[in-house]
Amino acid sequence: MAEVVEREVTLKELKTMMADFARERDWDQFHSPRNLLLAMVGEVGELSEIFQWKGEVPRGLPGWKDEEKQHLGEELSDVLLYLVRLADICGIDLGKAALRKLELNAKKYPVKLCKGSSRKHTQISSSEADCNESDGKEDPSKQ
Amino acid sequence: MAEVVEREVTLKELKTMMADFARERDWDQFHSPRNLLLAMVGEVGELSEIFQWKGEVPRGLPGWKDEEKQHLGEELSDVLLYLVRLADICGIDLGKAALRKLELNAKKYPVKLCKGSSRKHTQISSSEADCNESDGKEDPSKQ
Amino acid sequence: MAEVVEREVTLKELKTMMADFARERDWDQFHSPRNLLLAMVGEVGELSEIFQWKGEVPRGLPGWKDEEKQHLGEELSDVLLYLVRLADICGIDLGKAALRKLELNAKKYPVKLCKGSSRKHTQISSSEADCNESDGKEDPSKQ
Amino acid sequence: MAEVVEREVTLKELKTMMADFARERDWDQFHSPRNLLLAMVGEVGELSEIFQWKGEVPRGLPGWKDEEKQHLGEELSDVLLYLVRLADICGIDLGKAALRKLELNAKKYPVKLCKGSSRKHTQISSSEADCNESDGKEDPSKQ
Repeated sequence: MAEVVEREVTLKELKTMMADFARERDWDQFHSPRNLLLAMVGEVGELSEIFQWKGEVPRGLPGWKDEEKQHLGEELSDVLLYLVRLADICGIDLGKAALRKLELNAKKYPVKLCKGSSRKHTQISSSEADCNESDGKEDPSKQ
Repeated sequence: MAEVVEREVTLKELKTMMADFARERDWDQFHSPRNLLLAMVGEVGELSEIFQWKGEVPRGLPGWKDEEKQHLGEELSDVLLYLVRLADICGIDLGKAALRKLELNAKKYPVKLCKGSSRKHTQISSSEADCNESDGKEDPSKQ
Repeated sequence: MAEVVEREVTLKELKTMMADFARERDWDQFHSPRNLLLAMVGEVGELSEIFQWKGEVPRGLPGWKDEEKQHLGEELSDVLLYLVRLADICGIDLGKAALRKLELNAKKYPVKLCKGSSRKHTQISSSEADCNESDGKEDPSKQ
Repeated sequence: MAEVVEREVTLKELKTMMADFARERDWDQFHSPRNLLLAMVGEVGELSEIFQWKGEVPRGLPGWKDEEKQHLGEELSDVLLYLVRLADICGIDLGKAALRKLELNAKKYPVKLCKGSSRKHTQISSSEADCNESDGKEDPSKQ
């Protein structure tokens, strides 16, 4: 596995590892789409618990202990691993889907119009563009 | 980007693309850990909406239209992209963390003891092993 | 508190109890809107863990042990209590808001048009009505 | 319904309203426990989107427009209504469960030991008490 780390892990490799892991333990029977989705929601909950009483947390987590960062890495990983497994069980190529979504986002939020702004698309000049990351659903007062 | 697709995308590449995307739009100012976490929770909600009224969904999503699968791929990607960005902003190497978590899981759920079971570790012979995927928190009646 | 149980608890009573609870422990300092929201997401995660490996669960939870039902009641309550507290801290009258939302829903999903259907509003005769509970965001193939 | 508002709505009343609402539309068929749970997760996502790009938000939401507060009230209500419905479909008396949980919390977090603290129970004198709101799972460095 060391070699994998060296050359940076791909989503496909994680997918294969998760599939092997489940097959070896005869766990495919538990891995239905909605079971995996709820398991992922459970992990998102554990990730949220890490941040819940902290108030605003600066980038890079200054002041966090190593054990806290390690715990955070584990919870982030749990979300990722269930997400990868869910995509696989649904027959979705997550790597391709993510690259495609990044391209869609690049078109949706053109650099020129969106620079430094999270405004709703109705508030900027182009009706095509949307500089609001949340798909136009967030509070339009946010500048 | 085509080349990237060919040789399978790595988590590190997605991280770099997300960082470039944010920098070009001057969006780093919005990307604090808790902002990104809440954005990810929002996307998990959109992912859940896809599955909410469907009852049990079989593996491979038989009968789903192409446009539904594409929508699913987009929501899975949204969760992934915010997760990758959150890890980056927190200074966590998500690929390394995921590989490490897989190793921890392999030790926690040994094949011999866990085959076909999701029982609590207290119910099996080894006090070291835990065949309950949810870290021992789920219903112990599940066999 | 026995008397309260007798005559059915109101949201306002829960709000007051939560406020007293926090004040007595000097916990108001931790109860900011986003802290409470993330705490609630954490509890939603714990609630999801109860259901995660179960496949489809029938109404009334036949076969669940008393201790499982009690655990479920606790997790449902944790979500409720943080929700009530979050609304209070935001200055929202949750009881009024819920009654108002029920009225809005009654208009949005008229009985005549929506009976037995969860179809998208574009698929039924009235452009005003929406028989899709998820605000028109779910899969339109669901009949 | 005006009368209900006057004397403060109970959880039991909301439960009955939701049950009537579903029965009139023949929607009981869609209201299985896991369907409702995922629908609630979807609403938690929409609630999170309101707060996602805001950074820390002060109590009382100073500076928020009326329409934003109204939107917030709607999303809080959506979470509440699905939660109430989920409890009902599972056969859980949510009001009783919430009062019982409040009593459990009062024992778990005694005023004397917990005042002003969110420390882990291992860090305070009593092994019985737990002044960490997240059931002992959060970062122990938080004082």
